Amino acid sequence: MKRTSRDIRTANRYEVLRRLIAASPTSRQELAAATGLSLATVATLVGELLELRLVTEVGFEDSAGGRPRGLIAVDASGGALIGVDIAETYVHVELFDLALNVLARAEEQLRPDGSRPEQVAGRVAAAVAAVVDRAGTRAGRVLGVGVSVPGQVDRDTGVVEYAANWQWHGVPLLDLLAELLPYPLHLDNPLRACTVAELWFGAARGRDDAVVVNLGTGVGAGLALGGGLHRGVSNSAGEWGHTTLVLDGRPCHCGGHGCVETYVGAPGIMQHLRELGPHSPLLHPDDQTATIDALARAVAEGDPVARAVVRETARYLGAGISDLINLLNPEVVVLSSWVAARLGEPLLVEVRRAVARHALRRPLAATEIVLSPIPTDPVSLGAATFALEGALRSVRQRSGTTVTTGRAAPTGRAVATGRAVAAGSRTAPSS
Amino acid sequence: MKRTSRDIRTANRYEVLRRLIAASPTSRQELAAATGLSLATVATLVGELLELRLVTEVGFEDSAGGRPRGLIAVDASGGALIGVDIAETYVHVELFDLALNVLARAEEQLRPDGSRPEQVAGRVAAAVAAVVDRAGTRAGRVLGVGVSVPGQVDRDTGVVEYAANWQWHGVPLLDLLAELLPYPLHLDNPLRACTVAELWFGAARGRDDAVVVNLGTGVGAGLALGGGLHRGVSNSAGEWGHTTLVLDGRPCHCGGHGCVETYVGAPGIMQHLRELGPHSPLLHPDDQTATIDALARAVAEGDPVARAVVRETARYLGAGISDLINLLNPEVVVLSSWVAARLGEPLLVEVRRAVARHALRRPLAATEIVLSPIPTDPVSLGAATFALEGALRSVRQRSGTTVTTGRAAPTGRAVATGRAVAAGSRTAPSS
Ligand SMILES: [Zn+2]
Ligand SMILES: [Zn+2]
Repeated sequence: MKRTSRDIRTANRYEVLRRLIAASPTSRQELAAATGLSLATVATLVGELLELRLVTEVGFEDSAGGRPRGLIAVDASGGALIGVDIAETYVHVELFDLALNVLARAEEQLRPDGSRPEQVAGRVAAAVAAVVDRAGTRAGRVLGVGVSVPGQVDRDTGVVEYAANWQWHGVPLLDLLAELLPYPLHLDNPLRACTVAELWFGAARGRDDAVVVNLGTGVGAGLALGGGLHRGVSNSAGEWGHTTLVLDGRPCHCGGHGCVETYVGAPGIMQHLRELGPHSPLLHPDDQTATIDALARAVAEGDPVARAVVRETARYLGAGISDLINLLNPEVVVLSSWVAARLGEPLLVEVRRAVARHALRRPLAATEIVLSPIPTDPVSLGAATFALEGALRSVRQRSGTTVTTGRAAPTGRAVATGRAVAAGSRTAPSS
Repeated sequence: MKRTSRDIRTANRYEVLRRLIAASPTSRQELAAATGLSLATVATLVGELLELRLVTEVGFEDSAGGRPRGLIAVDASGGALIGVDIAETYVHVELFDLALNVLARAEEQLRPDGSRPEQVAGRVAAAVAAVVDRAGTRAGRVLGVGVSVPGQVDRDTGVVEYAANWQWHGVPLLDLLAELLPYPLHLDNPLRACTVAELWFGAARGRDDAVVVNLGTGVGAGLALGGGLHRGVSNSAGEWGHTTLVLDGRPCHCGGHGCVETYVGAPGIMQHLRELGPHSPLLHPDDQTATIDALARAVAEGDPVARAVVRETARYLGAGISDLINLLNPEVVVLSSWVAARLGEPLLVEVRRAVARHALRRPLAATEIVLSPIPTDPVSLGAATFALEGALRSVRQRSGTTVTTGRAAPTGRAVATGRAVAAGSRTAPSS
């Protein structure tokens, strides 16, 4: 039990800002009613947010004869947040205002021969510079940059411990980026980015317990429990893709057999297509995206093979999601990432049917299964949210009592030396 | 996000008392160092525990020249806690002092024709009366009774929603007990009782994330995440026994196929024995306990069939535990309940081997797998712990700001009318 009153204060600060982003302007009284916090606590938290210039006073509302109530709103122009989505073949970067509207986007391609850590860091820095440039004066001060990289990430040290795509082992990516970018930096992976995006802005908002099922090439389950991200003891929770669904089943690249991922990740779905329609023109053997797109179109047109593939995928997915429901008893299960987005409603309908056959009655009755409602790239949104959380954690930084997990690079000079350490922020072992 | 500063205060009160139970006497300074809380917070919490008469001042220690430090200890004789373990064929009751030493035990048999709710409540009341009588004046004031009943339990209303053993549906067991017992009552199920016992007194103490794998006739995984019990949105989290390990595998009484429970629960282990040693004398077809006992003895004697059965059980159990490790990334996995206790070390060794083959490297490296170190019945200990937690939650009850989830029956008369509602405690819908 290492949770302290400081953690609860940070969590409450998150909660108040979340409400303000969802509905601005609002009064301290309404915030207190919505959060269950006392008016005094809300007043303190709003004071901190005002001091951080994340929110602003915007006037008064009449309160039925009583004293007029002060209204607070998110100060959209009070700063910018940048989210970086590093994928196998591209770097996608978005710059957000504080209401989390996208002000600018940039994309850089990653070629197979350009995947050395220094090269990837260079592409990231170029794309970040591009969005800052495009947003121009609207960007204002950049509060931080969140970076999502696929793999096992130590967010405290900023080291990518393992990235299967590029066979990276122990890459100090945050140090490399700190030499190039003069902003506070936060590193994590796409699964946690998507989960935090749902928690702040999507289907998990206001829910105590939610599971975000990520369906892409790889597969994972982000766990938002008790209103916060469950990271596990070494920040690797959520490896649902490598839980066993069929003991001794299909071989998996993790070395195991019968993992969930081998049946419901994009390559697994392509395998169902090969088995159910060996000569189907829907299959693009070397192109996952084209195959899933073709499947989605064919399902819409009533193609029987495509429908059978979605049903078969949902049979496995439904069993796996039932396991999550039985084990964790969540309020909501969110289907996220590109495979879920493209197969959409037809997949959702079949998954709900399969779950209804598998899950226990009591937890099933308490759960809904939905598609992610986030209309933009959830990974860059979530990455930007890590930067926002970093800014919120730093409230007491000046007094020296808080250690931030992100790295702050306050001056160009500090950045140029690669020793980007602000007073009160954490020093990486390597610096 | 419904967690409030009151919740964190309750959690901190739990934590301070846990430390005191583990090591008494101790000073406020040592408690602050051990918990990471400020000395001022610890002083406030200790003051509350003193007021509740759960702890007591026991003198001073020198602090190397400084002011002598006050020492605090658990006041073992400050009150009694009663834990009730209702099983299919018996009711086992233990009375504890506040250091959680057992002062008295009682057991009542449940006959198949004696399983109506009123009959079971009567057996519970008789056994509770017996332990209070046996403990005599040592019992002091009874702070509460925790009751564990196998099945789906609504702990807020005290209703057993479903108990498969007896086909109970919607039984208001807490109301029935409140008519017979003049103590605050707390209802939950054995999985959560065992988990809370590990969290307070066993292998999960001081751990942030732990999984308590219960191996009995049924199978479950109690989740202690972030230092507290993860209940899920409808208090049914932990149904790991009914997650799929072999899609379309062995039929399960839940209606599914290939559930973990069908391979590693006592009946599943008996099935392995039937398959691996069809004529084995170890099999007692109608007696799970005798069969598991015979297996344990035969393994110790090197019997090859018995060893093969343990290996086969561990193959499934290892795959299932790997799933928990990959998904939740816990610090510790605890093997608990009677099957784990009887098969003991030989099972543990095989399970560790199987997990090392299945689990992902990163979460595997962060996890240890251990047998439960609790020497007595963990279910009645955990049930008593629910009563202790109830007493700790009630600190502010007199001011009317706290709603307790247990039911308090302050006077004999209130009990006799079945309307056992104390000021500030929760009224059941039926009363
Ligand atoms: Zn795998
Ligand atoms: Zn089952």
